[in-house]
Amino acid sequence: MDYRIIQSPSSGALEIISRRMGMSSVSAKELLTDCDAVGLIQGKLIDMVYVADLAEKAAGITAVDVRGSCPQNMVLLALLGDTASVETAVNNIKVKMKKSRGSD
Amino acid sequence: MDYRIIQSPSSGALEIISRRMGMSSVSAKELLTDCDAVGLIQGKLIDMVYVADLAEKAAGITAVDVRGSCPQNMVLLALLGDTASVETAVNNIKVKMKKSRGSD
Amino acid sequence: MDYRIIQSPSSGALEIISRRMGMSSVSAKELLTDCDAVGLIQGKLIDMVYVADLAEKAAGITAVDVRGSCPQNMVLLALLGDTASVETAVNNIKVKMKKSRGSD
Amino acid sequence: MDYRIIQSPSSGALEIISRRMGMSSVSAKELLTDCDAVGLIQGKLIDMVYVADLAEKAAGITAVDVRGSCPQNMVLLALLGDTASVETAVNNIKVKMKKSRGSD
Amino acid sequence: MDYRIIQSPSSGALEIISRRMGMSSVSAKELLTDCDAVGLIQGKLIDMVYVADLAEKAAGITAVDVRGSCPQNMVLLALLGDTASVETAVNNIKVKMKKSRGSD
Amino acid sequence: MDYRIIQSPSSGALEIISRRMGMSSVSAKELLTDCDAVGLIQGKLIDMVYVADLAEKAAGITAVDVRGSCPQNMVLLALLGDTASVETAVNNIKVKMKKSRGSD
Repeated sequence: MDYRIIQSPSSGALEIISRRMGMSSVSAKELLTDCDAVGLIQGKLIDMVYVADLAEKAAGITAVDVRGSCPQNMVLLALLGDTASVETAVNNIKVKMKKSRGSD
Repeated sequence: MDYRIIQSPSSGALEIISRRMGMSSVSAKELLTDCDAVGLIQGKLIDMVYVADLAEKAAGITAVDVRGSCPQNMVLLALLGDTASVETAVNNIKVKMKKSRGSD
Repeated sequence: MDYRIIQSPSSGALEIISRRMGMSSVSAKELLTDCDAVGLIQGKLIDMVYVADLAEKAAGITAVDVRGSCPQNMVLLALLGDTASVETAVNNIKVKMKKSRGSD
Repeated sequence: MDYRIIQSPSSGALEIISRRMGMSSVSAKELLTDCDAVGLIQGKLIDMVYVADLAEKAAGITAVDVRGSCPQNMVLLALLGDTASVETAVNNIKVKMKKSRGSD
Repeated sequence: MDYRIIQSPSSGALEIISRRMGMSSVSAKELLTDCDAVGLIQGKLIDMVYVADLAEKAAGITAVDVRGSCPQNMVLLALLGDTASVETAVNNIKVKMKKSRGSD
Repeated sequence: MDYRIIQSPSSGALEIISRRMGMSSVSAKELLTDCDAVGLIQGKLIDMVYVADLAEKAAGITAVDVRGSCPQNMVLLALLGDTASVETAVNNIKVKMKKSRGSD
């Protein structure tokens, strides 16, 4: 699983994210301009759904799936919120995912 | 094969699942809001069809294929139902899939 | 190559198959409701075309390609028919494919 | 590289091939019903273009790319013609491709 | 991660890039004809978003995602600008990405 | 990286190439019928952009990206021109790509 946190992302970075979110580009940009930081997590689809649930329950953030209409096996999840919430959520996920592999 | 069980999933997690289900988003959301828990299983397409059949015959759940119009080789299956049924179904699948590999 | 036989498949399993068959969903469902069993075989596209030919020549079954409009390298083949014919076809294929690798 | 020759292909096998040929299904079926045998060759796109050229120059056959509008890296080539021409073309390709690897 | 810098790119190279940028081909060509050099970086989607942010913050360049409407796991990023800025940005990224792996 | 040169390509080979070029099939066929030979190079997208630039700067040829609207990570590049130019371009690329790996 890969992790990145971007503080006040540049317009090019926001553009790449917003074009791949599965919603209208207007609502995508609204969501993105309201946030101070973006946490990015890339992994298997099954883990990304699980992690989105973990993140939203732990901190005041919104979890969005960064992919258009042609999903692949590996997906990228964006955690949007203020810097402290995003950092808490990413650390929280790192700890929980180490404990629970969820595979046979 | 990967397994996850999510209790009362968050709105972001439900959003990711419902957008990738191959049905209208209205019926997807209806299905999802009626369930207490979501069991997620990710694996080869052939095994997911087999497992959907196993799960629906064993417990009071609905099995749905979590992918849009551009399927890949690996797919994610969502088992929707009350918590006990989903847990029973996932455990049942783990046991049966260990016994039967189904490949040469 | 992977093999599975499903006896009187559940509605969720039939739904996954019929949505991925490259035909109108009405004719897909007709084909599927007429059959007692579904044999599933997953492998390379070239072998699936070869196996479809083998299966249809050996037993009273219909071979269908379980993929939508965006085919991949690995495909899933469904063999539809009564239980005995599907079992005969799958066993027949296992034997013939062991003898003939068809690659250099 | 994988090779298969199918003599007088069954309707299910022809259906799989014709649906994935990048032309109207009418012209695809015409091409296919006119031929006694189908030679199938699966490999890298670059080699399939090369092999199509080899096959058409060596024997009275038509080479067609068995993929729809969403091509992948690995493609399947169908060589259509009478049985003798298809067998000659496939053997010819096997010999020439062993001599010339075309990679660094 | 792969890196290339192209000085005053040829029309064929610009054509390949502009056709895969997720914007109208007019604005794509405008962006491209204004720049002296193109830096290309290919890697995981999560790293490309991170790198786009790094590059835009460090130098007077525009970072664009070179992919159409069907994104994959690996993506290509184009850094557009004058030669010095592009070289600075690419070197900057090489150094920062060696220090920070961002994966567990 | 894979290389092939086809002298006066057959109609089937031209058909496969022209259908996958990202332009109208009329202009694709015009480009193709004007050339004596086709050089094919298959590799990573980032290298193919780089190589297209190299080829066009070195010899009187046109470099075209042989892929439709759903690009993948690995792409095929066609170098169109007279036989001598295509051979020069392919040899030129082989030499330059051995010297410069462009990856970390």
